[in-house]
Amino acid sequence: MNFHDRLDAAWADSGSMLMVGLDPDTSRFPPQLLGRPDAVFEFCRGIVDATAPYVCGFKPQIAYFAALAAEEQLEALCRYIREKHPRLPLVLDAKRGDIGSTAEQYAREAFERYGADAVTVNPYMGHDSVAPYLEWDDRGVIVLCRTSNPGGSDLQFLEDRDGTPLYLRVASMVAEKWDRGGQCGLVVGATFPQEIAKVRERVGDMPLLIPGIGAQGGSVPDTVLAGRNSRHTGMMINSSRAILYASSGDDWRDAAARVARETRDAINAVTP
Amino acid sequence: MNFHDRLDAAWADSGSMLMVGLDPDTSRFPPQLLGRPDAVFEFCRGIVDATAPYVCGFKPQIAYFAALAAEEQLEALCRYIREKHPRLPLVLDAKRGDIGSTAEQYAREAFERYGADAVTVNPYMGHDSVAPYLEWDDRGVIVLCRTSNPGGSDLQFLEDRDGTPLYLRVASMVAEKWDRGGQCGLVVGATFPQEIAKVRERVGDMPLLIPGIGAQGGSVPDTVLAGRNSRHTGMMINSSRAILYASSGDDWRDAAARVARETRDAINAVTP
Repeated sequence: MNFHDRLDAAWADSGSMLMVGLDPDTSRFPPQLLGRPDAVFEFCRGIVDATAPYVCGFKPQIAYFAALAAEEQLEALCRYIREKHPRLPLVLDAKRGDIGSTAEQYAREAFERYGADAVTVNPYMGHDSVAPYLEWDDRGVIVLCRTSNPGGSDLQFLEDRDGTPLYLRVASMVAEKWDRGGQCGLVVGATFPQEIAKVRERVGDMPLLIPGIGAQGGSVPDTVLAGRNSRHTGMMINSSRAILYASSGDDWRDAAARVARETRDAINAVTP
Repeated sequence: MNFHDRLDAAWADSGSMLMVGLDPDTSRFPPQLLGRPDAVFEFCRGIVDATAPYVCGFKPQIAYFAALAAEEQLEALCRYIREKHPRLPLVLDAKRGDIGSTAEQYAREAFERYGADAVTVNPYMGHDSVAPYLEWDDRGVIVLCRTSNPGGSDLQFLEDRDGTPLYLRVASMVAEKWDRGGQCGLVVGATFPQEIAKVRERVGDMPLLIPGIGAQGGSVPDTVLAGRNSRHTGMMINSSRAILYASSGDDWRDAAARVARETRDAINAVTP
């Protein structure tokens, strides 16, 4: 089963295109976890179990764990997700990009050490920087295309002689050349729905990972209308902070579950 | 003292523009380290002490440590370099790139946890993805520009309406807009000396990190002629595998020292 098949199954099983991003920021943890050495794991586990009924997958952001020297807690969290929620794909958000021999090491980190189903990567160094991930043929590689931050335009909007912006060149390159076996996806920010639509037009039914709803302000209806594919799926719509920190009190799990359910419902209200 | 000043001092003190990349590949370790739990640290420490007289700095590649779950050994190594070789800048090769709130976490990882003097970053997500590193005003930020791998051309060579390739747009952007206080450098591969020269022409005396000599085949004289600045310095010329694995026997430290000395001498033979 390749990554596209695995996502198709997750969308069908869960009836959801919401993905929950796991960005543990200890300064926003609920009081009941303060001072615990395993607070990062316990917080993320609480969020995972509370939101699992409403999502198509989870996306831990490795930077938050690395800043806290919490790699062991990330390993434990990934193992927990794989064991307790095996039908929900696990996307490691790492945005790696390096030459082939180094990319092999990052692929081992993502797929072997953390057991991720997919990893996000940066296209700036070109095909051979992504090829080592593609050799893992049952795993996914989600390539940055049009990112949700304001500075994304600095490079991604530069136009070539034909007037095609860089992010659309990346979309075509991934769809036509890099993806040979149902492995690739693209990151396209919810803050730019018109550009989601242009990417969708170029890449057929390819899965899109869409950050930027919730705390970053992207609109759910605009995102869904622009991004869904011919089968009315095709999106991992990510929300992190709006769900993780829905409450700073002892009801944090319930609050996260409620916001996740509401977000899933808002997405499904658009999908016919 | 900002990063440019720190590099100037290192070039002057050491009389070298060679940087040694620390990419620990356990399958190539000498027999005497086999089976040791601290083999990664001990190997890198051996290389550091053997080559320190011939270099202007060290560049650990974090992917090799991450694939082995050896972050604690990387922490110990960085601490060792800072304590034993405090005049030699420590560049963490991580090539990170993410939105601002996530980049803050990666900046903490590089500068606080590992205590690096500088970190490599990817420009694809634009200025706000790099700004959190620049807030650490005594540290350096080395931006990918023209990379040494064949696929580097896939994106970096795309030309805009004026015929300017992307990598030169990145070079100008970093020199004119991103670097406000002696903080920035650029990665330009030794495998493309003509392009090193074009970057140098655009960025004045800005430091360049130049991978690609040694195992990747870049020519030392061509690199030096193309890349030196108006003060006949300005380059961190990186070699990793050719030095680390100069011998697979018990003489690995001596062999690494010899290759490092010869490489420094080859660089200095070009510099007047």
